[in-house]
Amino acid sequence: MKVALSEARKAYSLAEVPVGAVVVRDGIIISAGHNLREHTQSALAHAELCALDAACVKLRSWRLLDCVLYVTLEPCMMCIGAAINARMASIVFGCSSQESRSANITEIDIKGGVLGNECSFLLSHFFLKCR
Amino acid sequence: MKVALSEARKAYSLAEVPVGAVVVRDGIIISAGHNLREHTQSALAHAELCALDAACVKLRSWRLLDCVLYVTLEPCMMCIGAAINARMASIVFGCSSQESRSANITEIDIKGGVLGNECSFLLSHFFLKCR
Repeated sequence: MKVALSEARKAYSLAEVPVGAVVVRDGIIISAGHNLREHTQSALAHAELCALDAACVKLRSWRLLDCVLYVTLEPCMMCIGAAINARMASIVFGCSSQESRSANITEIDIKGGVLGNECSFLLSHFFLKCR
Repeated sequence: MKVALSEARKAYSLAEVPVGAVVVRDGIIISAGHNLREHTQSALAHAELCALDAACVKLRSWRLLDCVLYVTLEPCMMCIGAAINARMASIVFGCSSQESRSANITEIDIKGGVLGNECSFLLSHFFLKCR
């Protein structure tokens, strides 16, 4: 977490919301990242996603098995979902976030079933071919 | 959704799980993307995130206000979170996903409060400075 904090300080010095993250496996730091949302103008440039992306590049795998994500601020839904997608073992965060906790699926309007059969057919065909 | 489907077919032709996505504003396509998880070996390379990232680049903003995300498969937690972070108006998906629906926050071990005061202090200092 101390390394994640030093990453957060890098964000601070760039006038970004100071959040830092580190990916660790077996006590060894695989990658680190800090929030760069304003500099990159990307909604994806949270500290966690920067660190996760760098870890995938370093390990040449989208599976970050046995890896732990350390982050200075309680992660949002996107970042928790990314850690789950990467098959990470766990997340350890520093301070809590009112915003992270209140953000949820009800914040966006989601509608399904548009061209559902066509979309489903393509997927079924793909998985049948795989087997 | 037809354009998202043609993106999904691109993924299919690359032996990737065929999912495609499009970002639309005022009926105009801003960006498109397809799943590239295996090719890039990145856990973040879902169709939705590829399209979202390209839309931020194109609009030079992390705020995708009034934009709609069309995606052929029900989005996962990461992608819904990303759309919320980008302040998108709504998500429209094609077919449902058993996997997306069952995936949730209980799938990963999350622990907080590690160096919580230090992490919190940096954030408070930043927001005080901003005001």
